[in-house]
Amino acid sequence: MIILGLDPSLSCTGWGVIRAEGSRIAHVANGQVPTDPKAPMAERLAMLHEALAEVIATHRPDRAAAEEIFVNKNPQSTLKLAQARGAVLAACGGAGLVVNEHAARLVKKSVVGTGGADKTQIQAMLKILLPGAMIAGADAADALAVAIADAHLAPKR
Amino acid sequence: MIILGLDPSLSCTGWGVIRAEGSRIAHVANGQVPTDPKAPMAERLAMLHEALAEVIATHRPDRAAAEEIFVNKNPQSTLKLAQARGAVLAACGGAGLVVNEHAARLVKKSVVGTGGADKTQIQAMLKILLPGAMIAGADAADALAVAIADAHLAPKR
Repeated sequence: MIILGLDPSLSCTGWGVIRAEGSRIAHVANGQVPTDPKAPMAERLAMLHEALAEVIATHRPDRAAAEEIFVNKNPQSTLKLAQARGAVLAACGGAGLVVNEHAARLVKKSVVGTGGADKTQIQAMLKILLPGAMIAGADAADALAVAIADAHLAPKR
Repeated sequence: MIILGLDPSLSCTGWGVIRAEGSRIAHVANGQVPTDPKAPMAERLAMLHEALAEVIATHRPDRAAAEEIFVNKNPQSTLKLAQARGAVLAACGGAGLVVNEHAARLVKKSVVGTGGADKTQIQAMLKILLPGAMIAGADAADALAVAIADAHLAPKR
């Protein structure tokens, strides 16, 4: 089972692909898609859509996963994030992928063992769970964490 | 100048294409893209993206326009709307289109003459401004209104 984890954001979307067989997981690939902050919104969204469509075409995942989205304290950030997510999920849907959603707390709990884990703890655990993986950055790390959580949380889909 | 007006929403996205030459406008086409409420989110977003990409390929607009988005009282509605908008705008960006954004009040004022106009007034005015146009529904009407407003508000782009 190949799982694509996603950490959508307008400025830089992270992605990570793992292979899961039962309780065994292995790293396949990961990366980040930054967009030009000076480009028009529609162009940035198209960049995300196209880059993720290419990732999916290359790695042919069986399913995808992302953290649940919620309205946070900054409405403008929420709107940017949700639009970026819409572009990314459209690329998944266009390839016939279902995108499982997991609460951020459950992702952390699934990877580190506690729902209150911070980014440093997650990245340290990724080094143990995916030995040898070169991780492109913090967004790619978050995406890999979602993929690992999905392997644990939704094994039967 | 061919202008594509957009009224993105997850359940049904409206679109309308007009031709604008100076202060003269004419109807070209309009339509609505409903999505299956039972389908997974990613699939619905892909439907919107693909349908709008097809509209753009068919009518080859010079620019696009949509109402500004904001966080409303229902956070879940806002998140759905923003994700739908992200999928639709990604299709525009993928075709090299800039999407102008206009405040809802300005759209109404531009079409009807008052920022507080209701849907009935807008639809009545569309019959006058775009005589003979068969309008697919309320979402297509809103999309045509945005296109007309864009012809007035952003004539030089």
